[in-house]
Order: sequence, then structure tokens, then C-alpha cells
Amino acid sequence: MILTVTVNAALDITYYVPALKPGSVHRVRAVHVRGGGKGLNVARVLAALGEQVVATGLIGGQAGEMITDDLGGSVAQEFLPIAADSRRTVTVVAEADGDMTAFHEPGPQVGQREWARFCAAFEALARDAAVIVLAGSLPPGVPVDAYGQLISRTAAPVLLDADGDALRCGLAAGPALVKVNREEFTGLLGPGSADVTAKPGMLEVPAAVTLGSDGAVVSTAARAWRAVPPARVPGNPTGAGDAFAAALARGMARGARWPDMLADATALSAAAVAAPVAGEFDADAYKRFCRQVKVAEV
Amino acid sequence: MILTVTVNAALDITYYVPALKPGSVHRVRAVHVRGGGKGLNVARVLAALGEQVVATGLIGGQAGEMITDDLGGSVAQEFLPIAADSRRTVTVVAEADGDMTAFHEPGPQVGQREWARFCAAFEALARDAAVIVLAGSLPPGVPVDAYGQLISRTAAPVLLDADGDALRCGLAAGPALVKVNREEFTGLLGPGSADVTAKPGMLEVPAAVTLGSDGAVVSTAARAWRAVPPARVPGNPTGAGDAFAAALARGMARGARWPDMLADATALSAAAVAAPVAGEFDADAYKRFCRQVKVAEV
Repeated sequence: MILTVTVNAALDITYYVPALKPGSVHRVRAVHVRGGGKGLNVARVLAALGEQVVATGLIGGQAGEMITDDLGGSVAQEFLPIAADSRRTVTVVAEADGDMTAFHEPGPQVGQREWARFCAAFEALARDAAVIVLAGSLPPGVPVDAYGQLISRTAAPVLLDADGDALRCGLAAGPALVKVNREEFTGLLGPGSADVTAKPGMLEVPAAVTLGSDGAVVSTAARAWRAVPPARVPGNPTGAGDAFAAALARGMARGARWPDMLADATALSAAAVAAPVAGEFDADAYKRFCRQVKVAEV
Repeated sequence: MILTVTVNAALDITYYVPALKPGSVHRVRAVHVRGGGKGLNVARVLAALGEQVVATGLIGGQAGEMITDDLGGSVAQEFLPIAADSRRTVTVVAEADGDMTAFHEPGPQVGQREWARFCAAFEALARDAAVIVLAGSLPPGVPVDAYGQLISRTAAPVLLDADGDALRCGLAAGPALVKVNREEFTGLLGPGSADVTAKPGMLEVPAAVTLGSDGAVVSTAARAWRAVPPARVPGNPTGAGDAFAAALARGMARGARWPDMLADATALSAAAVAAPVAGEFDADAYKRFCRQVKVAEV
């Protein structure tokens, strides 16, 4: 099975309003609520692909209950309950122009003992994992090298999808593969790296960098590949990165070759953009895109 | 006791961000969560004033639990549970300029049987009430003349604090007193009424109209009074209207004279503006303002 870790799970709330007017009161036209956090989104995509997946992480309070209720039976759940409430995110979609404005709560205060208990629970779950996905932000109280600590507790290959210091500290522990987007890659290497050129050895470990509608690259110590999506896909890019990570994790579990994993992840990511609901993918578009994505070694 | 009715209770979430930038992702610096809805806010102020108060209304789901948990033991609770989730409101405070941008969810879908059960429960509770406060918006599924239906089920004097059609239909049933702000009054009588001049018979029933920093007026069939607050009070106006309503309800329960009720409500409302937290009031400022508010018959 594939084990996904969501340390900072979130109740993702989306509000649809005709237009966003700062300084005024908006009557929300429609509300969409979903259990989220990167790891959970990856788990949901893996389950939709028919993979055996277990979701673990920290969950607290009524917001935590709403997150696990929303997941329901689609994903096997092994969350550790914590005392503080899981966070919310609120995304306001202005229907006039599709503009999205988001507010992310920092997350619950996690106690040292809670973190220690989670590390032990993770170690036990990790024994049965073919691949482990560590994805998303860290809540207050969790050590900044949390991902490094988890990587050091398992022999299974780890896919790391993080940002900032959590990413930096995780990288030092040597994950099997790291997945970042353009902004995260630039944050890691500095502003000179904004123009991402595919080449071997981009990071100390194998790396996949997503570039939005420009596709994605994979770079290992010795080789590099670039994937070009078939055409500009109109739709909602929210969740496309999580679909990309899910495809990578499945490829790792199957021992796929790097260029095949890259092509598959690029196609699934584009199929997620094509789906009307964030976090889902268009199965027909996925099949079509699998034939159309072009991968070349550079 | 005073009975407050909150048909559309809300989990009021406040986010503090440095500045609001439409189209971008905001890391929320601080989160404040509170059980709300006008009726509940009035109940909380009455409890803080030492009054015996019972809060009733409709509550559903985990959001509903969070609302009642937040109230705790400060207010006696007699809510009817419903199947759908209570709504949230999200208010984003931009710390740079204090600007507030709010998003109000429409509220849970209430079933016909749930509404009928609530009406029966209300009738029983109302028998012990010296005064009843009907305050706030109506959720989907509740009849637009909900406040009228409730008023017709009780002989106790009712203070009505509502807006739009809910206000219009409630007025027709003859509450003892209606409390509106300038915008609600204008919405009722049309744009020509934007400049509120205190005079007798402003509405068919006794009416209190709050005018922000310009004070407030009370108008009965035969007489009218105007209250002028002592000086411009800096602070947070959120919840000032609910403090005003709470003072009116207490005055009604005690059989106070109209000008005394108006003065007291104007002082308490200004003391709510002076308190740093929305929905609370500054007790020292309240005492001082009680001596300083000027009420004159017009």
C-alpha cells in the first residue's frame, strides 16, 4: 500500500461570490466543504486510481471530524487525534472573473508528546508501505525537521512534497524523490532559478519540478527529462499538483521508469485541471492526455 | 427571564491578515472563533449584565456544536437540533487599515417538520418569558413570515431585530418594539428615508433606530426621543447593535420609560464599541457613558 502523511490536515471551504469587494459584507451564493491538506488530496486521487492507500496524520476537534467524515470510506484512515482543532482554509471564488482569494489558518498547536506518539505510530504503519508520501505544511509545535525525522524512521522510499524550511530540512534526510512547483524550487535555490532549465543534478536527490501549463521536468544525478502537455488545458489548477504527486507515488510503487512516471504525472495533472471540481480528475481526458503528452530527455 | 431566539445561528470566524490582496493566498496571522448570530450575541450581553436569559433557536452539525460549546455555561441553552450544519461567517480584518471584509454563508436548509417542532418548543419556552428577542436572518427553508408566526404564538412582549422581508413580515404581526439600523430603516421605507429625522409614528409599532456615531432615536405613535452619545467613541462597531438590543430588552423586562431605555441602550452600545473584542462591552466606559448620554424629546 501507499501511505500518505498529512501533518496539517485542513477543512477546505470554498465560497462562491459574484465579485470580491474589499471592505464590504458578501452574501455567499454557494459553499463547498472538503477535507484537505496536500497528503489527503494525494490519498483521494490514489484511491480514485484504484490504488490501496492509507492516510495518516494529525486530526483534532470538530474541524478534524468534518475532515475525516468527508473522506468517508474512500480512503483507509489511521489518523492520530490531537487536542487542538484542525485548521480551516477559506477560498473565495469571484464568479465574475474566476479570481481566487485564499485564507489559510496556521494550524493547531501540536504538543511534544503528541508529535512523539505520531512518530511511533508512523514507524509502525510505514513497515507495510511500498511508498510513503509526505506532503504539505507543518502546524505550530511540530519540529521544522519533521519530514527529516519521519524519513529517518523508515526504509521505504519517500516522496516529499513541501515548501520552505520543511522542504529544506526534509531534503537533508534524503527522500527518494522530491516534488516541487516553480515557486518552491525558486524558494529553495534563490531568485536566479526562476527560469527552470531541465538538467541533471538540479537537486541533491531526484527531483520533479512542475511548471504549470509549461509541463514538468524530472532530474536525477545523471539524467533529466522534460514533459510537454498536449495543449493548454482550460479549467481549475487547484489540486493539479496533488494529482501529479499521486501519479509519481504510484509510479514509484510500481518501479516505473523516470520518463514514464513523468509522462503519466503530467497527463493526470492536466486531467485534474480539466475536471470541474478541484481535487478530482477527468478520467476520459486522462486516457487521451496519456497518449498526447511528449517526454524527451535533455 | 428573557428569551432570545436565533433561528440562523452562526460560527463567527475572524481572520487577521496584514493586508487583503484579492487574487492571492493569505497566511492568516490570528484566528478568533465565536458562537454568534444576532440573538446569541444579545443573550451573551444580557448574561454579562447579570440578567436571567435563555437562548433558543436552531443548531446543526459540528458547526452547531462549536457554537454551543463556545457559549458554555454563560447562557442557558434550549436549542432545537436540526439535520443540516449551522452556517459560518468569515470576517477578514486587514491590520494595515482595520478594513473588514465579511463572507456570510446562507445557512442550513431547515425542513418543514423541523420548523414546526421549533414553533411548538418556542411556544412552551415563551410561557416563562418576560420579554422575547427575535433577532437576525432566516435560514433557507424557514418561512419568510417566521417572526410573524412566532409573535402570534406568544402573549409576551417581543423585541424584533431583523432586516428585509423577515422584518416586513414580522412587523405585520405587531411586536412590542422593533430595533433597526439606518440601512434597515431605509430598506423598509425606501431611499427617501436615508436622512432619519426623529418624529412620532415613524413605524406602525414603537421603533428604535440606531444611527451609528450619531446616536439613536425612539419613536412611538405619539412621541419621539433622540439620544446623543457623549463623544465619538473610537473602537470596533461590530456587536454594538446587539448590545443596543440587549439594553432595550432589559428595559422592556423592567418596564422602564422610553427615554431611559434609549439612554441606557445608547450608553451600552457605545461601551461595546469601546471594548477591544467584538461582542463584549467596557464596563467602566458603560458607567461613564450612562452619565454622559443626552436624551431629548423631539
